[in-house]
Amino acid sequence: MSYKLFIPGPIAVSDKTLQAMAQGMIGHRSPDFVKLYESIQPDLQELFYTKDPVYISTSSAWGVMEGAIRNVVRPGKKVLNCMNGAFSDKWNDVSKRCGKEAVALKFDWGQPVDPAAVRAELDKGGFDAVTIIHNETSCGCMSDIDALMAVVREFPEVIAIVDTVSSFSVLPIKKDELGIDVLITGSQKALALPPGLALCSVSKKALDRAAEVTDRGYYFDFVEFQANHEKGMTPSTPTIALIYALKSKLEDIKAEGAANRYARHARLNKTVKDHVLAKGFKLFPKDGYGSLALNCFANNLNYDLSALNKTLKSKHGLVIDGGYGKLKGKTFRISNMGDETDETIAAMLKAFDAALAETPVLPAA
Amino acid sequence: MSYKLFIPGPIAVSDKTLQAMAQGMIGHRSPDFVKLYESIQPDLQELFYTKDPVYISTSSAWGVMEGAIRNVVRPGKKVLNCMNGAFSDKWNDVSKRCGKEAVALKFDWGQPVDPAAVRAELDKGGFDAVTIIHNETSCGCMSDIDALMAVVREFPEVIAIVDTVSSFSVLPIKKDELGIDVLITGSQKALALPPGLALCSVSKKALDRAAEVTDRGYYFDFVEFQANHEKGMTPSTPTIALIYALKSKLEDIKAEGAANRYARHARLNKTVKDHVLAKGFKLFPKDGYGSLALNCFANNLNYDLSALNKTLKSKHGLVIDGGYGKLKGKTFRISNMGDETDETIAAMLKAFDAALAETPVLPAA
Repeated sequence: MSYKLFIPGPIAVSDKTLQAMAQGMIGHRSPDFVKLYESIQPDLQELFYTKDPVYISTSSAWGVMEGAIRNVVRPGKKVLNCMNGAFSDKWNDVSKRCGKEAVALKFDWGQPVDPAAVRAELDKGGFDAVTIIHNETSCGCMSDIDALMAVVREFPEVIAIVDTVSSFSVLPIKKDELGIDVLITGSQKALALPPGLALCSVSKKALDRAAEVTDRGYYFDFVEFQANHEKGMTPSTPTIALIYALKSKLEDIKAEGAANRYARHARLNKTVKDHVLAKGFKLFPKDGYGSLALNCFANNLNYDLSALNKTLKSKHGLVIDGGYGKLKGKTFRISNMGDETDETIAAMLKAFDAALAETPVLPAA
Repeated sequence: MSYKLFIPGPIAVSDKTLQAMAQGMIGHRSPDFVKLYESIQPDLQELFYTKDPVYISTSSAWGVMEGAIRNVVRPGKKVLNCMNGAFSDKWNDVSKRCGKEAVALKFDWGQPVDPAAVRAELDKGGFDAVTIIHNETSCGCMSDIDALMAVVREFPEVIAIVDTVSSFSVLPIKKDELGIDVLITGSQKALALPPGLALCSVSKKALDRAAEVTDRGYYFDFVEFQANHEKGMTPSTPTIALIYALKSKLEDIKAEGAANRYARHARLNKTVKDHVLAKGFKLFPKDGYGSLALNCFANNLNYDLSALNKTLKSKHGLVIDGGYGKLKGKTFRISNMGDETDETIAAMLKAFDAALAETPVLPAA
């Protein structure tokens, strides 16, 4: 079952990265681990555009996304969840499941989060935090994080929690400059690592807030992460193999240069978009808010996406995504994250064309 | 920095297992993942001695150990934490950090949990759960889980949460027969996988309880695990590389035969114990309660354990453990978990003898 993933996560992982995982174990309380941990901090901080530490969580991003809510929302206070797709919708549900009062600020899937609407909600008062998904992978919609953070900065008591699981390292997200308090990403999307590791950088303000919340737990406790960080360690046994892979990937990013990486992602994203739009498909998200990490296209031509993907997999050794959740069959998504190049994207598009040519169009519903 | 770990976790991982990780990614909502997930369930259930599903958590064991508390302890009810070493002590702290009323039942490190004392506490009433660490890795002490569960079964409203991170697959732990409701283990100890994956089997009783607790969260929510299990999936993006490794390890265990594996661990454990006791060291835990997964020896001969380990690492390419937490320098621990054989244990003991011969004895404190 060997085929290449062009779905927006997990994405294809290079042989170099896979082999980097396959190294012998070290004790996580040993000087060798401290050396490993400390060796990757400067590169991580550079990519996070922050002077704050970058914590390494042995979990997928959802663990830290839930943990952040538990850390910074005090009893009697509220969290504002900005919702414009499957994952940001879910964050509202998860916030409630943590026993927090969670206010839903809803937009249609594919519409960006509106800064003015965020201001109007926060103006009502009583909020301890706001959650924003920078790049809604489910519908390929990228909100304007600069404009959103300009609004959130007007409310100094509000902790800004931003998930960038599919945009981190695709474009610069300047944590300190924007005033993001909790910046979260995962391993298996834009970083092109296997899933199972999350990264999180936390401001002093968010740490101070966490210290006030008594039932924040242990496994995702920011204060524990900070205390262990100061010793070059993690609170619990870390996913050592994935940290080896992360170190290898950070070397790759350094070798390419972050600016070149951003330019490559922008270029490949446009290549895919132009190619597929030229076939008569439309972009699903609102004009001007398409993700740079993937393209989510409307299936306005009504192709049988399931058949398309079967052909892609069986004849061309690759898969794209046939729509997430309620958009299944109505949209398709193609990732340009990670290690893709002009050549691999061109080959994928050639396969896409060939497969599409033999894909039936469904009768109108 | 290549050397072999004889510390009690993480432990050495075989090349076969490391290479099993290094396979291409698959979508975690794809039929290929479902096939992978479902293919390992029967072997896991056999090892857990259960008809209940075995959930796969992308975390270290502490995540699920915390999650279990959040799942099954209702407001106004208590959890009893049986404490006889660093990790079981910590479970009490973690329970409190989840905002739960947690009662400490303390024994000296190295003493087993006393069934009569557990009964006396539970008799006081108001308990929703009890936590037991079967094998306290920190001090190499293995409590009598059969006797303990016989007591817990007298209290049908109490959910039994048992951690077996360093005893699982070392000896049979018969979940259903013993009435364990939540049986937890991690990847990096007795299973000889890299850290970053935890396994958890949950009874219907514990699932029903979880459904009553409203702030149990999402990432470690048993009800979510069950709902996704029924589709052959996990709630969040799983650590696919480690699941590949787990599948490979389950094949190894099947090839060896579980009974042979248990016999091997018992034999190697005794080999190490007899060898080191013959040198004049004493076993740290109470007589009859030494772990079968590792030996924790008292440093009654007052060797410089730090110097010993330096020699082992630099001259013999292996490391043992020099004592956990408050036992640092006062005990040393040698693991016989995972893939060790008569040959590898003999080689380690030979190195131990050679290194010990050149290790200084410290002046009496």
